Amino acid sequence: MKTGWIGLGAMGAPMAGHLHAAGLLHGAWNRGAARRDAFADAYPDAAVAESPEALAEAVDVLALCVSADADLAAVLDRVADRLAPGTVVVDHSTVSPAAARSAHARLTQREVAFVDAPVTGGVEGAKNGQLAILVGGDAEAVQTLHPLFDAYGKVWKHLGPPGSGQAAKAVNQLIVAGIAEAVCEALALVEKLDLPADDMLELLGGGAAGNWFLDKRGRTMLADSFETGFEPALLLKDLKICRALADEAGLESTVLPGAIADYQRLVDGGETGRDISALIRLKR
Amino acid sequence: MKTGWIGLGAMGAPMAGHLHAAGLLHGAWNRGAARRDAFADAYPDAAVAESPEALAEAVDVLALCVSADADLAAVLDRVADRLAPGTVVVDHSTVSPAAARSAHARLTQREVAFVDAPVTGGVEGAKNGQLAILVGGDAEAVQTLHPLFDAYGKVWKHLGPPGSGQAAKAVNQLIVAGIAEAVCEALALVEKLDLPADDMLELLGGGAAGNWFLDKRGRTMLADSFETGFEPALLLKDLKICRALADEAGLESTVLPGAIADYQRLVDGGETGRDISALIRLKR
Repeated sequence: MKTGWIGLGAMGAPMAGHLHAAGLLHGAWNRGAARRDAFADAYPDAAVAESPEALAEAVDVLALCVSADADLAAVLDRVADRLAPGTVVVDHSTVSPAAARSAHARLTQREVAFVDAPVTGGVEGAKNGQLAILVGGDAEAVQTLHPLFDAYGKVWKHLGPPGSGQAAKAVNQLIVAGIAEAVCEALALVEKLDLPADDMLELLGGGAAGNWFLDKRGRTMLADSFETGFEPALLLKDLKICRALADEAGLESTVLPGAIADYQRLVDGGETGRDISALIRLKR
Repeated sequence: MKTGWIGLGAMGAPMAGHLHAAGLLHGAWNRGAARRDAFADAYPDAAVAESPEALAEAVDVLALCVSADADLAAVLDRVADRLAPGTVVVDHSTVSPAAARSAHARLTQREVAFVDAPVTGGVEGAKNGQLAILVGGDAEAVQTLHPLFDAYGKVWKHLGPPGSGQAAKAVNQLIVAGIAEAVCEALALVEKLDLPADDMLELLGGGAAGNWFLDKRGRTMLADSFETGFEPALLLKDLKICRALADEAGLESTVLPGAIADYQRLVDGGETGRDISALIRLKR
């Protein structure tokens, strides 16, 4: 199987790296040159493609890990006509279920399969190949992708028709945002009350408040470091997808309006660092 | 060391049971007779005390696990005059930091020590002796309590002067409530979107949304079972304590107003079951 990879960001680069280590990566490409160069430096024996068009013509599977609906559409504009019938496109970006269904419809016309497969587990999960993968699409195409999922996934599930993976990811992000709000407020309160930080991290993590975000980000937040992780602007994009889905489904959410307002304020203020834990700055 | 125990609820009974197993329990008492009888049935060779007054006169350490500020004050009204100088009272209830400081001041006048030591880890943590214990008080008195904490604690920390344990617990409950809100909404959305429940629990738990509450309550919530756990009315009480503390400390919380409104609505509606995961009923 020859796999191409488009999108070498904080998640995409280590994922493509795992694919390369598994001997499955034919070539990788990124829109911005800086990340192409960084990938070439990190994996000197991996091939960086000249263009997405060239990559699309050379592979059996094309994996994408870009940012938003518009980025997915822009990639498809460039590659759709170059993909041979029978090719499988798998998108690891987080986009709206509607964008995934639209991509599926567009490629199906060309006898190309499209699978939506957003991931969760953070940059840590991408680096150590321990991602959870949320998969929507046609069963036969999903079957083709097992070797890829094995390369960077800890657990993956085929959840239903096209768009199901993205719907599931929106649900995931609702939890991620709710936890981020609660933990950022709690640790701001720890600071304000002058409670001993290290002891509090151990106690909070050891009981019914325990969660991934506190475990992975608690210490860095309290050290005012927001260098590693998941960018606030991306979570904000995901939460707007989730709000649309919740509205459609008739869920009256308490969490989403507050989280969207807070992350909008954080992003507008500009002091976001590279991780959603920077929300603590609003709470101090 | 002869220890007395007052308060044999969902948390207190198994905690007193661990103390009994460690050979430290002189006697136990509960205001309501039903829970006294249930304790006697569960631990036939443990002694149930005739009254809190009798218990207070017989012990070196008196441990409390009641519900709210008023319950703590009511117990102290009965036992304060019966405790010998040098006795240590440890309160595992969740009450306001002010109530803990007031109890400390009241008992100090009688040369009795008072330590606030609320716990977290749920009924599971109480049953398997794996609680996290958040301790405030005078260092010498805290030192006396190590054998008790060893009997039912996984981790415990002395966080500062009287009231510090309760302040820390309020911080903990902010996270607990924020996570409960997010997980209940997310799982209601899983139902509305008809995503496969078992797969979703595994995926959500395996990535950046992972948390204790989802792990321990996800499956039962989706089965509409709310029999085991932490009563919504008690969380609501804790959140009101946390709100007062946050207001005092100057934290503008996004999480607390929504969570207090939701849990107030759940408690007012009466359909709470015995666990805070029943919040999903409001979100369906």
